[in-house]
Amino acid sequence: MDIVGELWSFMIIRNVFLGVRRFEGLRKNLGISRKVLSERLALLVARGVLERRRYQDAPPRDEYRLTPMGVDLFPVLMALARWGNRWLVDEKGPPIQYVHKCGQTTPGRLICTGCGEELGAHNVRALLGPGGEEAYVEAIERAAGRGVFLRTA
Amino acid sequence: MDIVGELWSFMIIRNVFLGVRRFEGLRKNLGISRKVLSERLALLVARGVLERRRYQDAPPRDEYRLTPMGVDLFPVLMALARWGNRWLVDEKGPPIQYVHKCGQTTPGRLICTGCGEELGAHNVRALLGPGGEEAYVEAIERAAGRGVFLRTA
Repeated sequence: MDIVGELWSFMIIRNVFLGVRRFEGLRKNLGISRKVLSERLALLVARGVLERRRYQDAPPRDEYRLTPMGVDLFPVLMALARWGNRWLVDEKGPPIQYVHKCGQTTPGRLICTGCGEELGAHNVRALLGPGGEEAYVEAIERAAGRGVFLRTA
Repeated sequence: MDIVGELWSFMIIRNVFLGVRRFEGLRKNLGISRKVLSERLALLVARGVLERRRYQDAPPRDEYRLTPMGVDLFPVLMALARWGNRWLVDEKGPPIQYVHKCGQTTPGRLICTGCGEELGAHNVRALLGPGGEEAYVEAIERAAGRGVFLRTA
């Protein structure tokens, strides 16, 4: 998973989606130190992606739930799972599969909210948005030309 | 973007999608050191997400292109953009918007490949896949119950 960054935070989020919400379960699944996990969890709570909930009073124990902002990462989870299951699995196949309630094992298909066509890099333009006047976006615009289709080759 | 991990690698990939393919352009846009950028680019090439192409011989200069494996990260790019544009933008609005060739500004909609219903955490089950017999997945199964819908609340 280091291909798309040091995704410890995302690995935590994936585990919470899958129902692993407690510190010890997360630590075992992720194989990271208590220190790193504590820091990551605190960051995710501070950023509003997770919230702590007390599930036991003596001794006090908390678990972590997704906030609405966290639940809204579901399409990212699915997109990464689809990509990982296509490019990173060995001959045994994917470790986890996602199955829609209709029975279809599905990575999902990303379609245009307007016309329903499948979205791809070849048919989507990147345009300057209303909040995009800073230098960063200007540099992208200079490099890419204003409103070109995304460049992949 | 630190919410979903130290996403330098993903930020690089996003820039390459947008047409920023050269070392100096990437360095300016990302505001990271030459050392970190060099390491990240080398990792992405080693993992098969980017490839180097010589665009000038004297002096030798390379640019970075997405491989098919890299282009296939497009749905992840769109899913992260949709989420960021919804939760992270200030009152000015999103810096970059994605527009389908039909004219619709679109974050995309993730639908089931079988029945076409929109996918969400409430209607997708996580199941053990054929490659999923290792301890990590067993721990998830123990925690989540076998084949429950994804847990968000």
